[in-house]
Amino acid sequence: MQIAIIGVGLIGGSIALAARERLGAQVAGYDANPQALAQALARAAIDRSCDAIEEAVSDAEVSFVAVPVGVQREVLETVLGAAPAGCAVSDVGSTKRAIVSEISDQRFVGGHPLAGAETSGIEHARADLFEGATWYLTPTQNTSGMCFQMLHRVVSQLGATPAAIDAVTHDTILALVSHLPHVLANILVSQAAAKLAAGEERLPATGPSFRDATRVAGASSAIWTDIYLSNRDTLLAQLDETIERLGAVRALLEAGEPEAITHWNDGAAADRRLLLAAQAQGGELYELRASVPNRPGVVAELALALGRAGVNIPDMALYPAADMTEGVVAFWIAGTGTADRAEQIIHELGFPVARA
Amino acid sequence: MQIAIIGVGLIGGSIALAARERLGAQVAGYDANPQALAQALARAAIDRSCDAIEEAVSDAEVSFVAVPVGVQREVLETVLGAAPAGCAVSDVGSTKRAIVSEISDQRFVGGHPLAGAETSGIEHARADLFEGATWYLTPTQNTSGMCFQMLHRVVSQLGATPAAIDAVTHDTILALVSHLPHVLANILVSQAAAKLAAGEERLPATGPSFRDATRVAGASSAIWTDIYLSNRDTLLAQLDETIERLGAVRALLEAGEPEAITHWNDGAAADRRLLLAAQAQGGELYELRASVPNRPGVVAELALALGRAGVNIPDMALYPAADMTEGVVAFWIAGTGTADRAEQIIHELGFPVARA
Repeated sequence: MQIAIIGVGLIGGSIALAARERLGAQVAGYDANPQALAQALARAAIDRSCDAIEEAVSDAEVSFVAVPVGVQREVLETVLGAAPAGCAVSDVGSTKRAIVSEISDQRFVGGHPLAGAETSGIEHARADLFEGATWYLTPTQNTSGMCFQMLHRVVSQLGATPAAIDAVTHDTILALVSHLPHVLANILVSQAAAKLAAGEERLPATGPSFRDATRVAGASSAIWTDIYLSNRDTLLAQLDETIERLGAVRALLEAGEPEAITHWNDGAAADRRLLLAAQAQGGELYELRASVPNRPGVVAELALALGRAGVNIPDMALYPAADMTEGVVAFWIAGTGTADRAEQIIHELGFPVARA
Repeated sequence: MQIAIIGVGLIGGSIALAARERLGAQVAGYDANPQALAQALARAAIDRSCDAIEEAVSDAEVSFVAVPVGVQREVLETVLGAAPAGCAVSDVGSTKRAIVSEISDQRFVGGHPLAGAETSGIEHARADLFEGATWYLTPTQNTSGMCFQMLHRVVSQLGATPAAIDAVTHDTILALVSHLPHVLANILVSQAAAKLAAGEERLPATGPSFRDATRVAGASSAIWTDIYLSNRDTLLAQLDETIERLGAVRALLEAGEPEAITHWNDGAAADRRLLLAAQAQGGELYELRASVPNRPGVVAELALALGRAGVNIPDMALYPAADMTEGVVAFWIAGTGTADRAEQIIHELGFPVARA
């Protein structure tokens, strides 16, 4: 398999390493920074370094664009202009709504691996970076089923768990589980440091709750300014909700009724259990085969519906009929109950479905 | 040394274990729960179990009250009513302003070890729980210098780093580094779970920023309702400041200017470095000796001034003159620069001071 990596930093470099090691792929790399490119070659993350994006993607079956959000659109357009007809093209940006609405090419599937936030640079790249990580894919009605399937499989082989999701929901979830926590961490350190700077008192060797809550404070502006801005509307809505919730806690505290405070705190404990339970999945693998018309959007429709229902899809395959007018999509799904639910969902979408 | 422990749970049991192991103390224990008391005896945390608080403290030189905040005042009054004249009495509650304003006995010094938040119960007690932990002491103008010195030394020998602080500042700092982070963690999980409960989408195996930020969410209401309420006014003020800061971030985002967002984020990074730097201390130990009149409040005045300046006091000693009208307080202080600063501070307070 021929894979092109545009931008061989931590994420691009790790995709390259994993693709060579786990897929036995031939990897062509390009980076605007010649030093990073040379280092990627020296680390054997890529098989060949290219002087231009066009050269890297010319014979690629899958192309990953792993560049800063600010230049992403331009690079993706160059890639799509030069990549072969059947080449699946994806990015790794941490917000998806903007880029997905800007790029309408059928070969493009937005992507976002939840990995590697702690460091950056090719020197930190490693083949197992994506092991067990959720890797979001955001297919749309335009998306080629073949390209989605190819990307889904590659992502899975890289060690990640691909999860289809629509771009708007993706950005809301990321606002909730990443962008908002970063904002709050920043506020916590600044609020504490203001006390310190006021000379009133030195802070203690802070306890675990503070260390945990502020571990991500002041994360690199080179990355985060772009992230905050690219998810601005969603993050604004979540900030409003946080302000509202803080106001509600404030009112509870002011009223000073222990029962109400206990009720609020117990609610948070229950919510935490709910989040943990929602993430625990597993069981025996079942293969479901659905017959679908071979047109863009169908595979996306199925994958999104299953993703929405919390169905984890460890693997999938697409079998087009000889005349290309229709095809079969196979989904591997873990756990009896989950497989039953998936079968029901596919059935309700109007597609014939059976267990293989 | 005779030490009494009232309440042999995680904290009381750990003080007991450390006192026997590290100080070779004789430890008398009392607990309202006979099972906990029996277990403390079985674990050899205490030398003898007592049927009443009065019995446990009757010959104590230091008494620690480690009971739930709700019954703390009543228990402390019983202890102070029965303990000998020279017995230093302290508590371990996580807020200090209320209890310190309620108990005016010269033998009482409010205390708060920053350790053991993760579990509870005598079964989790261990002799090294306080190793390296900050242990706040909140002496007032009423506090006996002898009692403070005794407690300071015992806390230090238990493995902790005693730090004198006034009760109001203590509660503000704890609001900042503990209570506010807990509130925000609760809000983060509930806000995310509301999205989940709305059935819109399952949350991913959440990334590190969310896991870190919510690790303390929904902590035991049996403990936290009391903590929130006992520090209500301070926490309300901090919540107001957080709401204000969220509003400011909101305005920055809405304006959408990258430079302003970068400036805000870089500020948080600088604040984080400031907090870390403030916590790093060390160096060679120096002994400073100050001559002071022997009246309540003097030792507190010195310890608070040094604590306020960020001077860590690994050990201290009080040497009263034969006629008890005056005495010498010795402070051991780490690092040349810190010792210089401490000397200057003591000098400015009007007390003769010299290096031993």
